[in-house]
Amino acid sequence: MTSTASNPTATAATNYSADRHANFNGLKCKECGTEYEAKAIHVCELCFGPLEVVYDYEAIAEKVSRESIKEGPISIWRYREFLPVATDDYIDTSTGMTPLLKANRLARRLGIKELYIKNDAVNMPTLSFKDRVVSVALSRARELGFSTVSCASTGNLANSTAAIAAHAGLDCCVFIPADLEAGKVLGTLVYAPKVFAVQGNYDQVNRLCSEVANTHGWGFVNINLRPYYSEGSKTLGFEVAEQLGWKLPDHIVAPLASGSLYTKIYKGFQEFVKVGLVDDKPVRFSGAQAEGCSPIAQAFREGRDFIAPVKPKTIAKSIAIGNPADGVYALDIARKTNGNIESVNDAEIVEGMKLLAETEGVFTETAGGTTIAVLKKLVEAGKINPDETTVVYITGNGLKTQEAVQGYIGEPLQIEPKLDSFERAFERSLTLDRLEWQTVSV
Amino acid sequence: MTSTASNPTATAATNYSADRHANFNGLKCKECGTEYEAKAIHVCELCFGPLEVVYDYEAIAEKVSRESIKEGPISIWRYREFLPVATDDYIDTSTGMTPLLKANRLARRLGIKELYIKNDAVNMPTLSFKDRVVSVALSRARELGFSTVSCASTGNLANSTAAIAAHAGLDCCVFIPADLEAGKVLGTLVYAPKVFAVQGNYDQVNRLCSEVANTHGWGFVNINLRPYYSEGSKTLGFEVAEQLGWKLPDHIVAPLASGSLYTKIYKGFQEFVKVGLVDDKPVRFSGAQAEGCSPIAQAFREGRDFIAPVKPKTIAKSIAIGNPADGVYALDIARKTNGNIESVNDAEIVEGMKLLAETEGVFTETAGGTTIAVLKKLVEAGKINPDETTVVYITGNGLKTQEAVQGYIGEPLQIEPKLDSFERAFERSLTLDRLEWQTVSV
Repeated sequence: MTSTASNPTATAATNYSADRHANFNGLKCKECGTEYEAKAIHVCELCFGPLEVVYDYEAIAEKVSRESIKEGPISIWRYREFLPVATDDYIDTSTGMTPLLKANRLARRLGIKELYIKNDAVNMPTLSFKDRVVSVALSRARELGFSTVSCASTGNLANSTAAIAAHAGLDCCVFIPADLEAGKVLGTLVYAPKVFAVQGNYDQVNRLCSEVANTHGWGFVNINLRPYYSEGSKTLGFEVAEQLGWKLPDHIVAPLASGSLYTKIYKGFQEFVKVGLVDDKPVRFSGAQAEGCSPIAQAFREGRDFIAPVKPKTIAKSIAIGNPADGVYALDIARKTNGNIESVNDAEIVEGMKLLAETEGVFTETAGGTTIAVLKKLVEAGKINPDETTVVYITGNGLKTQEAVQGYIGEPLQIEPKLDSFERAFERSLTLDRLEWQTVSV
Repeated sequence: MTSTASNPTATAATNYSADRHANFNGLKCKECGTEYEAKAIHVCELCFGPLEVVYDYEAIAEKVSRESIKEGPISIWRYREFLPVATDDYIDTSTGMTPLLKANRLARRLGIKELYIKNDAVNMPTLSFKDRVVSVALSRARELGFSTVSCASTGNLANSTAAIAAHAGLDCCVFIPADLEAGKVLGTLVYAPKVFAVQGNYDQVNRLCSEVANTHGWGFVNINLRPYYSEGSKTLGFEVAEQLGWKLPDHIVAPLASGSLYTKIYKGFQEFVKVGLVDDKPVRFSGAQAEGCSPIAQAFREGRDFIAPVKPKTIAKSIAIGNPADGVYALDIARKTNGNIESVNDAEIVEGMKLLAETEGVFTETAGGTTIAVLKKLVEAGKINPDETTVVYITGNGLKTQEAVQGYIGEPLQIEPKLDSFERAFERSLTLDRLEWQTVSV
């Protein structure tokens, strides 16, 4: 693996011609509208605005139907007409089509009627929603001629990029903040990429990666491939609409890190309306942040339309982005859909993780705990109507952030392998309440 | 939760009448053929042989077709006509329908042509094949009137029983050996069951649980509910047959703990043949054990038809059963299908975990490492023909046994958030080989 071997600039133009079978025909600046070829660029050369993929929705509408989608693979690639990958040679590791779990017990506990968990804690292959965006980004990276792929990550993205690159046989370098949870570091190293642990926070990692992308010509999934990468999150909108029986929910709650996921769920719903797959209706978009890194929630609360960057300090490391790239777009969506952006502290995050596990059997990481805690806060504040069909997005698995709950969930009762030892322990446990009993010694 | 509240003996007979819509009509001793009602019993009162569910295959054949299955849910419940649950009120947490991954890179590395990974490392909700058997057992437990469910577990079963019981609102007590991996203990406690850590090995835990089942009347998924529970593993046969385009593979390799999984995959294939869903053909069954707990492999090697129990000592704790209940049946299947049962040591198990992660992006636990290492050994010994379509069963997730690979996969290169710090580290990494580079300090 060398930096020159994977330089894509020479091959990008050639590969672009393969796009003739695709439903997208370039990139466009979200701010000033300048158009670009569908290459590995992500920032407008004129105004520095972010670039987005431009689709031919008429072509898509002609090709797709509820039936054609249902006949497709059980993965995000059933929606491939909406994704920016030109050839049929996409990387399918069964990513997506995660459960939309009807959460009756949690709903009752919160006092609302119809609640669903979109459970990407069991997304494949690496147990977070990042597998969606990485599958799209690496498929596009291969089309554009990259042989080395890379990312700036808070952990889940590193897991996903390393695993999917391994499956596809691409060289891989990942960059992470040095203080990540053990499970996320180990869950990256095992796939044998090069891992660089940067002594700094995510925003510093991200800045360094922008420089590396310029000098080494690698495909950074969330930098120079970001326009393609971020489109993968639309599938979280598509799947919910399909799984609800081809209709949109009344209210969604999703975590906010860069803000990209949230804005792309919105885009997914809009695209399904645009091509006639679902009826239009108002959907309220609420967002969740950790108090220790809540620049978007702060702006929302204060009625600002700009984001003041913060230094992250929270256990919810996977969403700890102090300078969120899509923060202003997320703010805009929350306001125009009559949603809310709320934050919760670290103790509430742990309680959120426990609440979801105890009521629904879903073990999520800190980001999911944040989202559940915000859901609870919004219901209690009357900001989610008990009659609204609400979908909450759980984006990662609790096995990756075990540190967060250690010390808060008790310990097993130690017994000898004898019936009387068990009976004594069991009798004792009956006199204790549920939270207390596990820590008793017998 | 009290022991009397959940005593099922009074309600079992009543609930049994609900079975009139089901395709099973009782239990039968696998040894002497004595028949029993479909209650919570698992051992023949006459000969102490294991009991198995008796199906009406003519009724099943009339009800199922490839099309009817394809129209069913994306979970094990698409095969519900083959499962011992009477009502439609089964517990569906999207268990099953895990990927059958075409493993081209691993196949090339091993020198065989067509290899598939059946990947239950991403099974839902708790990332092991145990979610299949627990979904069936708890559905049946509820039909039989149990309100408290329990298990004797090497870890994965505890995770699964606790999570699915939480989702279904059943009280739950689990029993584990006290020396389990941290991830498996924490991944049980988070669902707030009662957890008893027994100072002993799995076989001692299991014996204790048999006594508790008798005295407390709880539904132990792998003891008094075992005839129903074990049927869940058939779905690993059904899914592979369906995912291969309604045909059987030439050779399968699966891990052996109690031997139940292995024998039920065999039964699943046979049932699909019996009702006409696939054509009959010879399938070779090979099995994998860890050298530190290989009573079935030892019997196979020595040509014995009985199992000599052993004391387990291996990192592959989830398959460390020294006195395997279905060992003799597994032996029989391996011999009559011209398969093999092989064992590998702990170092080979770690190499197996790394090999699968690096070539296919699948991070499995020690049991999966065992299976991959045995696959490699069988190929190298010419015991798997390079032309055979081979399916290897990966049954659990690597995030649960992080201890096993820690120290064997290197560490990240530490750098400062500056381009020149990265460049120095990167240059240095190019002069090292892949295994060495991660441990260098720069």
